[in-house]
Order: sequence, then structure tokens, then C-alpha cells
Amino acid sequence: MSEHVTAAVLVIGDEILSGRTKDANSGYIAHYLTQIGVDTREIRVVGDEEDEIVAAINALREKYDYLFTTGGIGPTHDDITADAVAKAFGVEISEDPRAVKLLLERIKPEDLNAARRRMARIPHGAELVENPVSKAPGFWIGNVIVMAGVPFIMQAMLDGVAPKLTRGTPMISATLDAHGLPEGAYGEGLGALAKKHPSVSIGSYPRLQDGRFVNQIVLRCKDAEALASAEKDVAALLEETALRHRL
Amino acid sequence: MSEHVTAAVLVIGDEILSGRTKDANSGYIAHYLTQIGVDTREIRVVGDEEDEIVAAINALREKYDYLFTTGGIGPTHDDITADAVAKAFGVEISEDPRAVKLLLERIKPEDLNAARRRMARIPHGAELVENPVSKAPGFWIGNVIVMAGVPFIMQAMLDGVAPKLTRGTPMISATLDAHGLPEGAYGEGLGALAKKHPSVSIGSYPRLQDGRFVNQIVLRCKDAEALASAEKDVAALLEETALRHRL
Repeated sequence: MSEHVTAAVLVIGDEILSGRTKDANSGYIAHYLTQIGVDTREIRVVGDEEDEIVAAINALREKYDYLFTTGGIGPTHDDITADAVAKAFGVEISEDPRAVKLLLERIKPEDLNAARRRMARIPHGAELVENPVSKAPGFWIGNVIVMAGVPFIMQAMLDGVAPKLTRGTPMISATLDAHGLPEGAYGEGLGALAKKHPSVSIGSYPRLQDGRFVNQIVLRCKDAEALASAEKDVAALLEETALRHRL
Repeated sequence: MSEHVTAAVLVIGDEILSGRTKDANSGYIAHYLTQIGVDTREIRVVGDEEDEIVAAINALREKYDYLFTTGGIGPTHDDITADAVAKAFGVEISEDPRAVKLLLERIKPEDLNAARRRMARIPHGAELVENPVSKAPGFWIGNVIVMAGVPFIMQAMLDGVAPKLTRGTPMISATLDAHGLPEGAYGEGLGALAKKHPSVSIGSYPRLQDGRFVNQIVLRCKDAEALASAEKDVAALLEETALRHRL
């Protein structure tokens, strides 16, 4: 098991870029992958433009261990992800008998029209990704996993894919409450601790609540001992700062 | 006024990539820009890594008319956006007297420590972006607008910036309910209409509700007449499909 297994998420769809649909998929995938030891390093959203999708697929699949895409594999003309993936890999794409068989589990043969047949178009060399919800499959080619955009279906597909992923050492984390202190009060000390504990990623996350900052410090690391040591130091810093701040 | 003014959004922060924090900023900005005639073409999320931030800034600012960034301009060590922007533009960065003055509107001089002074570090040549909430400013350099990550503050900054943006022809849209029809039932006809109305972007957006698809068709265009003509055709297609589907 290698320590770091990396991933990117590519969300495909005009509806996200117009702000009409809020993308919940990338956050879901990032959280899910973190739990199983796969580190999401980048998320991109592009529209339904083949050139843009192809360029993003090639940039991200070369840079990271896995690329997960969501959206654009339905039966309508704006569903062009499968063709873009085939183009990115330089492989042919055609109707896949395995996918047709899956569609026929849900669709009567007389209803399997040209639109629905689009959902059986799979790039050559890809494995299918099961869709227990509505049958039309996703697929997995090289290090690219192509999933639906409908959240409920995407989530089911990810559950099916997860056991087959190479996993790294899972990230462990600790969250400390900043006692209502503003970042400026502990920022300098926290920077010094970040330098002292280079294997631990230390982040300060401000949030406004009723006009006041309610901040949290999050420590993330793959080694429990290093995490505990940094956590002890940060807790001491925050207590000391709180005392000083209230003098 | 040019027809198309384009933008990208770059969200910066490890907390989004770990799934700990759900990014609401990019969707907010995309929706906001759509309303004022600026088309968001791409969204990216990268972590708190200088090289990654610099590369993303340069890729996106060269490709689009505007780049909006959120996150990484606070007082802690993981706030490295301002330095990354300076590096991307190849300019110096230092404490900006205008920014110090703003900070002193809220912070007592004796509390203006090194951490808080970090928030006054501004790349040379940048204009400040006002922060009416907590004073620490964002900034605008070239075509890049750098904003805070805390949503409430980012939104106030965007309100301040919006009147100064070049705007294109606003996109207008029409949404049609698909009468509970599955995409496969109207997909072929919709594809033909997309070809018949090339200036109109026609998208079909499936959503699952209580185990049934509740789909919508969204038509988007910058010309009202073209939109109305396409809308009429799509409405007729959906009615005809619904009738046939229920035979």
C-alpha cells in the first residue's frame, strides 16, 4: 500500500456553470475518498463542450492516480461524456452488448429507441460500472471512472467502484475549537507550529456565526503519533492565547 | 458591449478537497455572474499548495476574461493566495499602506500583530476590493479578482466588484417541465430540436424524486426571439411525447 493515492474529480455540465444546479457531487466524492485513503487533489467543472471535456480529462488523468467524472452519460444530445472519454483515450466507441443487456433489464425492447441506445455507447476497452438504480451503466477505462450526474445514482456507482480502488494510508484528522478567538490572535503561533510539525497539515477555518467568528483548527496527517503531538501543541497555544486575549 | 464576457472561478483550500467544507462559493458566483451577463466557463478547486495555485491562476486568467478566486487571504500560515497571485503575475508583494489603514479601522494598533499584518500584503499594482464585514480587503489585479473564502464576506466583496465588471449580453432562459417523462422518451426529438435551434443551448436535467424521474428542460440563449421559437418547439415535443407515452 503506497502512502498517497491521489484523485481528481471532473464535474461535467452547463447547469452547474450557470448556477442553476448546485454541484453536490464533488464534495460528496471528496469526502468519500478521504475516508478510504484516496486524496482528492483537484476538482474541475466544465460545460457540455467536447474539446473542454477532452482537455480536462487528459490533464487530470495524467496528473493523478484516479479521475472520477460525473454527468453527461444520459440519453439526450447534451450527454457527450462517453464520446469525449473515447476521444481523450484515442479509442473507438460503439454500442456495447453488455450495456444493452443491462438496459433491457429495465426497458422493454420496443422502448429501446435511439435516445436510450445512446446510454449503451461505451468506449472500447472500458469495464462497466453498475447502476443499481436505473441500470444505465457508468464505465471505467484506464484510471478514469465515469459516473452519472444524478446524485443518488452517482453515489450507488461509487459504492460499487470503491472496493476495487487502490487505497493509500487514510488521512486522520483532529479538530480543535478556537474558543471564539479571531484568527489574528493565534495566527503567528499557529504558523510556528506548522513549521515545527511539517508532516501535519494545519488549517484554520474561520466561520461567521451571528456576526462573530467561530473558528476551528483542523490538523490532518497520516501518522497518529505525529498528529497527537501537533494536537497537544495547538491545544496549548489556543489555551494560552485565550487566557492572554481575556487579560 | 460584447456578446460574451467569460469568467472562471478558482476555489482555494484543502478543506474543500478533504470534503470537510462544502464549497458554496463557486455556485453562488456562477449564479450571480449569469444574472449580470458574465458567463462562467470553468470552476476549479485546488489545495493550499503554491505551485498548484500559481499554475491554475495562470491557466485560467489567460483563457477567460475574468478570474474570481476565493479563499486563502486570511491571517494564518495556510493563507497563501496573495503570494501565489504575485508569483503568477511576476510582481512584488508587500504590506500595502491602504490595506493597513483599513485594518486599523477595526483592529487597535497594539493588536496589529504579524499575523494580522499578513492580511495587508497586496501584490504591487493591485486595486483593493472592499470588505465591509471585517475590513481585511481582497484585491483586483489584471483580470483576477481575489476574494475571501468566508461566504458572507465573499458575497459582500462581489457586490462591491460587480458594478465595475464589463458585462455581456445576459443569458435568458426558459424552463419546461417534462411532465414526469423519462429522458429516453423525448431524447431523440430533443436532439433534433437542438440541431434546428443552434443558437439555443438545450439541456435536459433529470432529477430523482421519490424514485421517479422529475425532469426539466432548460433552454438558454442571448436572443429572446430565438429562445421563444425553440421553447414553442420543445413544448410541442413534450406534449406530443406525453400523449404518445400514455397511449
